[in-house]
Amino acid sequence: MKTEKENPQEDSARTLGEHAIIELMRNFFEPMPDVAVPFGDDVSAVPVAHLKSEVAVLKTDMLVATTDIPVSMGMWEAARKAVVMNVSDFAAKGVQPRAILVSLGLPRSLKREDIVDLAKGLNAGAREYGAYIVGGDTGEASDLIIAVCVYGAAVKDSLMLRSGAKPGDILAVTGLFGRSAAGLRLLLDNKCRASNALRKALVDSTCIPEARLREGLELQHLGAVTSSIDSSDGLAWCLHELASQSGVGFKVSKVPFADDVKEFAKLNGYDPLELTLYGGEEYELVLTVNPKEWQAAQAAVNAVGGKLLRIGEATVDRQIVLEISGVKQEIQARGYEHFKG
Amino acid sequence: MKTEKENPQEDSARTLGEHAIIELMRNFFEPMPDVAVPFGDDVSAVPVAHLKSEVAVLKTDMLVATTDIPVSMGMWEAARKAVVMNVSDFAAKGVQPRAILVSLGLPRSLKREDIVDLAKGLNAGAREYGAYIVGGDTGEASDLIIAVCVYGAAVKDSLMLRSGAKPGDILAVTGLFGRSAAGLRLLLDNKCRASNALRKALVDSTCIPEARLREGLELQHLGAVTSSIDSSDGLAWCLHELASQSGVGFKVSKVPFADDVKEFAKLNGYDPLELTLYGGEEYELVLTVNPKEWQAAQAAVNAVGGKLLRIGEATVDRQIVLEISGVKQEIQARGYEHFKG
Repeated sequence: MKTEKENPQEDSARTLGEHAIIELMRNFFEPMPDVAVPFGDDVSAVPVAHLKSEVAVLKTDMLVATTDIPVSMGMWEAARKAVVMNVSDFAAKGVQPRAILVSLGLPRSLKREDIVDLAKGLNAGAREYGAYIVGGDTGEASDLIIAVCVYGAAVKDSLMLRSGAKPGDILAVTGLFGRSAAGLRLLLDNKCRASNALRKALVDSTCIPEARLREGLELQHLGAVTSSIDSSDGLAWCLHELASQSGVGFKVSKVPFADDVKEFAKLNGYDPLELTLYGGEEYELVLTVNPKEWQAAQAAVNAVGGKLLRIGEATVDRQIVLEISGVKQEIQARGYEHFKG
Repeated sequence: MKTEKENPQEDSARTLGEHAIIELMRNFFEPMPDVAVPFGDDVSAVPVAHLKSEVAVLKTDMLVATTDIPVSMGMWEAARKAVVMNVSDFAAKGVQPRAILVSLGLPRSLKREDIVDLAKGLNAGAREYGAYIVGGDTGEASDLIIAVCVYGAAVKDSLMLRSGAKPGDILAVTGLFGRSAAGLRLLLDNKCRASNALRKALVDSTCIPEARLREGLELQHLGAVTSSIDSSDGLAWCLHELASQSGVGFKVSKVPFADDVKEFAKLNGYDPLELTLYGGEEYELVLTVNPKEWQAAQAAVNAVGGKLLRIGEATVDRQIVLEISGVKQEIQARGYEHFKG
C-alpha cells in the first residue's frame, strides 16, 4: 500500500491530530439505530437481540510499541497495560468486562520468551479484573502492536454516560493525578532525577497501572453518578469532555496533586499543575455525583478500598475554571493526543 | 520497548510461525468457563449474562500494510477487506454480524483523503453485510494497521463449529478457489502475464473479496451443516483443521478449480493445483453436510444466489487425500502462514 510522502500543502494525520481524524471519519459511518451509548463515549453499547433492556458493551484500544511503549518497559507490563487501559473504560461506565480478544502484530525477531511474557501479561490483566482472554489474531508487523477488544453486558439504563452532569453536581475523582506523567518523563529522559523510592513509585504507576473497576461497579450499583469518564487523555481533557457532553461548566476548587508528583516537579523544574491537569495516561475515573448521594457514594467507594475525592462542582456557566482562594484560571482543552507530539 | 536482534540459537516469531505462536500463547490464558465455541475456532462466543441459550459472538482480525496489503491496493479496498475478512468468519459460523469496532494505527504522513477513503471502506464493508461501525480507537503507527472487532448474537446450539463432521458427510465449498492467490501474484510480480479482462477479474477477487454471509446464514437456518470453517488460510489448511477438530479424514474427489486460475497458471507456468489448494486469502466456506440434507442445503444456497459445490466426503480413515480416477495424492497441512514467508 502506498502512503505517500507528506505534502505540507495538504492535511495529514500529523496536521489533523487524533481528535480531528476521529471526527472526520465518523462522518462516513452510517449510524447504527438504537445504540445505547453515543459514538465517542468510552465504550460502545448495542442492543442484545431479543432483549430491549440489555446491551452488549464493547471497547477497543491499541498499544503500538514505538509511540506508546517506553523502551525500558517489559513485554509483560506492555501486554497487561493494553488490557488495563480497556478495562478502565468499562470501569468508567460501571460495567464488568467479561471476555477479551487480542489482535497481536509481532516483529519477526521477537523471541519466544517475549511471546510468553506477552501471553502472561494479557492473562494477568484480564484475570485481575474478572475477565478472560477468549480469542484473537496473530500476524506479522514491523512494530509490536497489541489491539485489545473487550466485551461485557449491561442493563441499558444503568450505564454511566458522559452526558448527565447537572449544575450543582459534585465533581469527584478516584485518585491523585500526575504520577504516570512523571513516571513517563523518568523513563524517557535520563536527566530526570528522583530518589530510588520515588522513581519506583512513579515508574510503577506508568508501567503497572490499575483500573478503578471496583469503584466504578460500586458507583453504578448505587446509581449516584450523573456523568463519568476515564482519565486516560488527562484530567483537563476529561473535564472539557464531560462539560461539552453534559452542557455544563466546572469550577475546580481543589487540584488532586500527589505528594510525589510535587516532589518530582520540584527536583526537576517541572510545573506540578501541568503534570496533574494535562499529563494523561492515567486510569482514574472523573465523575459527577448528585449532592444528595455524595456521602453514600463516598462510603460505597471506601468500602471496596478506594477513595472518592471531591475536587469541585458542575456549574451553569459553561467555562472550565480552576478557582482557588478567589484566583481564577482557565483550564485548557488539551491533553495527550496522538500525532500532535 | 526492546525487541532485540534475532539470535539464531533461540526461537523467535520467525522460526515459530503463526500457528505455533498461538499454541504457545494459549497455554498461558486461563480458560473461560462455559464458552460456546472452543478457543481457536473462527470466532469466540461467550454466554450473555442471564441467558443460558444466547451467546455473544466475537471475532478480531487485523490487516498490517507491509505484510498484508499489496502496494497497489487502495485505502478503500484495504479497509473494506479488513471488515470482510472478519465477516467471513461470522459467515462460517452462521451468525449475523451486528456491530464493528476498529482500532486504526495511522502513519503520520497519511493524507486526509486517505483517511476519508479508510472510513468509507470500513463503512462499506459493514453495511454490505448488515453491520455498523460503532466505535474504535485511532493512534499513531509507523505502518498502517486496521484491527477490526465484530460482535453478533446467536443461540448457542445453532453455531456451526469446526468439530461436528461425521464419516459419510458430504464435503462442500461455496465457490471456486485460487483466484485470490493468482490475483496476489499479479499484484506482486510485474513479470506475471494476463489479458486485461483476466487481470481485472483476478485482482478484484484479491482486493474486493466477498464474504459468503447469505450462504452461511441460510445453511445455519436449515441446520444441515455438521462442521464449517472459512477458507482464509487456504483450502488444504481448512480440510486439515476440520478433520482434526472433528476426528475424521477427507477424500477429495473434485478440485474446485476456477477456469481463470487454470488460464493464469498456464500463461505463467504455475501449478493450478498449488494455487487452488494452498493459496489462501479466500473467503469461501468449507463445510460438511449431512447427506440426507444435501439437496435441501443446495437449494437453500441457490435460493440466495450462491452455490454449493460437492468436492468429496468425510471418511473414517483420518488421512486427507485427493483421489481422482483412482490416483491418490496426499493433501498437505500447509497454507498461508504469517512469519514463515
